[in-house]
Amino acid sequence: MPDTTITPEERETGRVFAPKYDASGLLTAVVVNASSGAVLVVAHMNDAALSATIETGKVHFWSRSRGKLWMKGESSGNVLEVVSIAVDCDQDALVIRADPAGPTCHTGAESCFYRLLTAEDGTLGLELIGT
Amino acid sequence: MPDTTITPEERETGRVFAPKYDASGLLTAVVVNASSGAVLVVAHMNDAALSATIETGKVHFWSRSRGKLWMKGESSGNVLEVVSIAVDCDQDALVIRADPAGPTCHTGAESCFYRLLTAEDGTLGLELIGT
Repeated sequence: MPDTTITPEERETGRVFAPKYDASGLLTAVVVNASSGAVLVVAHMNDAALSATIETGKVHFWSRSRGKLWMKGESSGNVLEVVSIAVDCDQDALVIRADPAGPTCHTGAESCFYRLLTAEDGTLGLELIGT
Repeated sequence: MPDTTITPEERETGRVFAPKYDASGLLTAVVVNASSGAVLVVAHMNDAALSATIETGKVHFWSRSRGKLWMKGESSGNVLEVVSIAVDCDQDALVIRADPAGPTCHTGAESCFYRLLTAEDGTLGLELIGT
């Protein structure tokens, strides 16, 4: 990945891709279904995961819990084929449109976001939704 | 927010809302336009930002760069009215559907994701897109 020193204005408005990693060397990646627009998964990428994603066209993440690079679907076969990658104003987050080969969540759900927050009589809880 | 000790299985499949903050006390919040489904902004929430979002129905974030709680739109007026909040499998990320009162990005763009990654002759760059 480019490691370019650019001004804040250039970072926000320019055409130079200069991903901004946090103190842990990570940025946030949001993967949405290219067909439906639904958010499938939110995870993190380090420089190696981003490079692997761009080079292979398949979404790779950095697992914070396992401390390793992994290709989404490397076990399940449910890879995410990249359609496009958008970057935000300060270049510390990506929205990746992708075609999923199967359910994205390891629970078997299409999306990791299969529960909605509810508040009944002031008590918070979760409600299952179809994804 | 509930500070409940639950099993990993309960966290993934249950109805107890138990947000899982990272080592910095933050989780990731993705805000999408409730009408179009477009991703508007990705930012972070600590416990106070999440509580304020739930209590007021307006999206609040924790600014890592400024080290403070802020309501999105507190300066610009372009608040984000919460329609629903979904939580992911391990409860460390939220997808918030919201009605934006105006452009969400501080640059004036509807969405912070106004540039697409391009690769021409192997050189990465960014292309402006309408949002």
